[in-house]
Amino acid sequence: MTTIGFLGLGIMGKAMASNLVKAGFNVTVWNRNPAKCDELVLQGAHLGTSPKDVTKHCDITFAMVSDPDAALALCQGPDGVLEGIGSGRGYVDMSTVDNTTSKAISNLITQAGGRFLEAPVSGTKKPAEDGTLIILAAGDASLYEDTKPAFDVMGKMSPYLGDVGQGANMKLVVNMMMGGMLSIFSEGMSLGQKAGLNGNQILEIIDAGAIANPMFKGKGAMLLKEDYSTSFPLKHMQKDIRLAVALGDQLEQPLPTAAAANETFKQAIKAGFADEDIVAVYKVIK
Amino acid sequence: MTTIGFLGLGIMGKAMASNLVKAGFNVTVWNRNPAKCDELVLQGAHLGTSPKDVTKHCDITFAMVSDPDAALALCQGPDGVLEGIGSGRGYVDMSTVDNTTSKAISNLITQAGGRFLEAPVSGTKKPAEDGTLIILAAGDASLYEDTKPAFDVMGKMSPYLGDVGQGANMKLVVNMMMGGMLSIFSEGMSLGQKAGLNGNQILEIIDAGAIANPMFKGKGAMLLKEDYSTSFPLKHMQKDIRLAVALGDQLEQPLPTAAAANETFKQAIKAGFADEDIVAVYKVIK
Amino acid sequence: MTTIGFLGLGIMGKAMASNLVKAGFNVTVWNRNPAKCDELVLQGAHLGTSPKDVTKHCDITFAMVSDPDAALALCQGPDGVLEGIGSGRGYVDMSTVDNTTSKAISNLITQAGGRFLEAPVSGTKKPAEDGTLIILAAGDASLYEDTKPAFDVMGKMSPYLGDVGQGANMKLVVNMMMGGMLSIFSEGMSLGQKAGLNGNQILEIIDAGAIANPMFKGKGAMLLKEDYSTSFPLKHMQKDIRLAVALGDQLEQPLPTAAAANETFKQAIKAGFADEDIVAVYKVIK
Amino acid sequence: MTTIGFLGLGIMGKAMASNLVKAGFNVTVWNRNPAKCDELVLQGAHLGTSPKDVTKHCDITFAMVSDPDAALALCQGPDGVLEGIGSGRGYVDMSTVDNTTSKAISNLITQAGGRFLEAPVSGTKKPAEDGTLIILAAGDASLYEDTKPAFDVMGKMSPYLGDVGQGANMKLVVNMMMGGMLSIFSEGMSLGQKAGLNGNQILEIIDAGAIANPMFKGKGAMLLKEDYSTSFPLKHMQKDIRLAVALGDQLEQPLPTAAAANETFKQAIKAGFADEDIVAVYKVIK
Repeated sequence: MTTIGFLGLGIMGKAMASNLVKAGFNVTVWNRNPAKCDELVLQGAHLGTSPKDVTKHCDITFAMVSDPDAALALCQGPDGVLEGIGSGRGYVDMSTVDNTTSKAISNLITQAGGRFLEAPVSGTKKPAEDGTLIILAAGDASLYEDTKPAFDVMGKMSPYLGDVGQGANMKLVVNMMMGGMLSIFSEGMSLGQKAGLNGNQILEIIDAGAIANPMFKGKGAMLLKEDYSTSFPLKHMQKDIRLAVALGDQLEQPLPTAAAANETFKQAIKAGFADEDIVAVYKVIK
Repeated sequence: MTTIGFLGLGIMGKAMASNLVKAGFNVTVWNRNPAKCDELVLQGAHLGTSPKDVTKHCDITFAMVSDPDAALALCQGPDGVLEGIGSGRGYVDMSTVDNTTSKAISNLITQAGGRFLEAPVSGTKKPAEDGTLIILAAGDASLYEDTKPAFDVMGKMSPYLGDVGQGANMKLVVNMMMGGMLSIFSEGMSLGQKAGLNGNQILEIIDAGAIANPMFKGKGAMLLKEDYSTSFPLKHMQKDIRLAVALGDQLEQPLPTAAAANETFKQAIKAGFADEDIVAVYKVIK
Repeated sequence: MTTIGFLGLGIMGKAMASNLVKAGFNVTVWNRNPAKCDELVLQGAHLGTSPKDVTKHCDITFAMVSDPDAALALCQGPDGVLEGIGSGRGYVDMSTVDNTTSKAISNLITQAGGRFLEAPVSGTKKPAEDGTLIILAAGDASLYEDTKPAFDVMGKMSPYLGDVGQGANMKLVVNMMMGGMLSIFSEGMSLGQKAGLNGNQILEIIDAGAIANPMFKGKGAMLLKEDYSTSFPLKHMQKDIRLAVALGDQLEQPLPTAAAANETFKQAIKAGFADEDIVAVYKVIK
Repeated sequence: MTTIGFLGLGIMGKAMASNLVKAGFNVTVWNRNPAKCDELVLQGAHLGTSPKDVTKHCDITFAMVSDPDAALALCQGPDGVLEGIGSGRGYVDMSTVDNTTSKAISNLITQAGGRFLEAPVSGTKKPAEDGTLIILAAGDASLYEDTKPAFDVMGKMSPYLGDVGQGANMKLVVNMMMGGMLSIFSEGMSLGQKAGLNGNQILEIIDAGAIANPMFKGKGAMLLKEDYSTSFPLKHMQKDIRLAVALGDQLEQPLPTAAAANETFKQAIKAGFADEDIVAVYKVIK
């Protein structure tokens, strides 16, 4: 039976690893702060002692950390992934990183004899818990086939997108749209209410029409209650919009609406809302 | 039985009036170019000779014309609505007009003894044909009650939003969001494809996630086929975004994302796409 | 000798009328609040009793009021300009108004038998006092010739720009550039200082290079001292940018940078800085 | 006498090195394509065989290359600067590079025993030829003192700005303002002319007022003649705006006007104007 490693047990990673354990996979977990492993171990996971240890003893190791620097450090650090990975074993980085970082990790893993797949996800805490993430896989095609059963447990969709970098690119494209939508949505919600319209009535009308979508429904309700409890941290959204705008720069693609939204998210960070939910962008608009 | 008048048989008006006739209402129609009435008359509508004639003989008259000037002209012109409307009869303007125009028409109708309701709609040709428009009613509450059975035939939802002006405001808010979404969507679709992603795969992934919405699905398919056949003319969308931005100006509501989208739609008009579908904004972005 | 009327003695009007008196013109002044006339009368001006009275007894009457509504009211109100103006007499409106208002006033004056010139100015309190305004004249060419000697006292430059509306248009173009420059300047000043650069050193370097201009020098010094005392009210600048963007809309001219600056100025108004100097836009940027 | 090296003889470097030779400095030049050295040698410069050779034999070596990659390659390549620089000798990089690159080069030079100064310039071909550049120096204070006589020949101003990175930051701040100004200026020039105003009259009026500046005068004349001959390549301006926006991102400084201008410059690159003068941004605006 395929043995699975899982590195990084933040909000997302913990829910994803838990689903793998519950589905009967043989899972070894590791987290920088080991206390976060306890719950998983109670569920039946093994406790790994280091990224090196986990990758050395597992057929496929997943990683889910917070940013490009953390993703690189996981590989290159002492007792890191590169020291453990070896011939034929697989490493699947599900963190959201930029193209350059993803390619750097891919090169490192490949040179160490491993197979690599980038697989950033779309979706936050709830879909992670429900196993309904959208997984954006790209890289080694054979590893994709081997990993598919685990992807099927963590997500509702895991298309193969091509060479390493395309998973990250797809993630940026989707999140850039999400950020732009949240910005125009917040502007509309604020404008409407200042004009004397009822916020709930605006949400009902949107929800009945061509632009109805789960995000407006969910975040709209939060916004009206002034509930900014974090499922997707605002600073991560801003990072993704920024990376998307930078990608546009490389590809000579003007992105005026995304750039405007980016500045609004930056304003929200300046105002101190970096760690609140993405819907907190409303606070600098209203 | 309530007699119904219908003024203005463009793409939208014709479909809406047709639904009223098919539902068994006693409908009298009028259009500036009378040839457009033929089909309705074949379906069982009466032919009115002028706006005055229609409003004089009908309990409730609907109007659906292309812009604020046309809506005002319909009332004030020779043989216009004001010459026909009288004590207790109702006038329901379903055209998309700005707040100022709507209030002007309301005052004119009210001073002439009529009851007035503004009722702009959200939705284009298909929902008009299917009777699934979202109707945004505001104004005389008693007329709203009387008109509800007809609204139920033309739309799937017709909330009462308060004083005259609030229907127009709600329309602007919804369309501003729609325009902003279309702009960020087009940017994302272009960015993704330039990065080497498959357009259909982008659409599938979006459609599985938190931002899935009928507009992206429908317009996304058009965009990939380079089909810009008009259901919602781009120039009308730009007009709505412009009016929304102007409303923001009045209400001291900054709207940076909407303003950026507005400039992109203006570019599309400059490039000659005013009469194509709103999705033609993609052509100046890609 | 040509007799001169002057209506509206705000910050600008008072300085301009004073220069005319000092230059030896026979000037009759009027202001809504008559107390503001005292100083001018001490300098040698006559006191008019109403706009009607002034325009009736003067060959050329200047007006300098705060906005389009005030400019129209001055003409149409009881004892207004239209009741006094008559065959051959001249009316020169130096207020900043939009194109539509300017044309409306032109029509009213012309229909009443008068000659009309619009002549909005570029420059604030200091240039008004120094007689170094830039006067943007458009309208009746013969009146322009008659008015030139007075323009030469009030301004350093008073080109004739063509038909009525072109003075207003030129003003909007210049002020739109000014607003955009102030916005990018504020962004740069804030960015530089956050990066650890010395504010005065930034100003010195700018002042030595290709973008050196009196506004950056003057407003830059204010900004570093956090001195926002009003010479050009921020709300008037925002109005001009807004009108310029609206003109762009009419003429199918996208103006993305102006639109972005407009939203920043709107934010400054929302933040309560409407009546402070234009440089107060820095406060919402820093 | 201090011996001077000069690496990189593009448009800028050639003019700067030539001024040093003419002022009597003992100058050794090197360029990747050695043919470009001929003219300097005729003027009295020595011909260096490699960056290593030049830095080894000169007290202070200047570099002026086109971008961060070229600047790094000059140091790290075979026969590069690092192989020649040694105890106490000075290296002054006058190329426009980002903060990160500048700090990387500084570390490399310092570790090799050399002293380092970054000194990007503001100004294009003409000021380079006239010795009126604005030189933005930062880094080793003792090297700054030693280099001052050479700076005085190349520029009209060479303030010391502090630690390495501050020269690059100042450059970005100034160029970001320049780019934003050019964007709003182009919008205004196009708007005005579409409104029927005379382009030359707009320029005269601007040149008489508070926003008069050499760039508008120079670029305005070019723009009206549709002369886009390159003195400052558009792609370099876009790079600087982009780096400034990225710096804003790091420092949590929203820059909405700069971001809008950046997208316009990106559009100009997409349209194929990357190598034309910065004023070619007008072509995508008009």
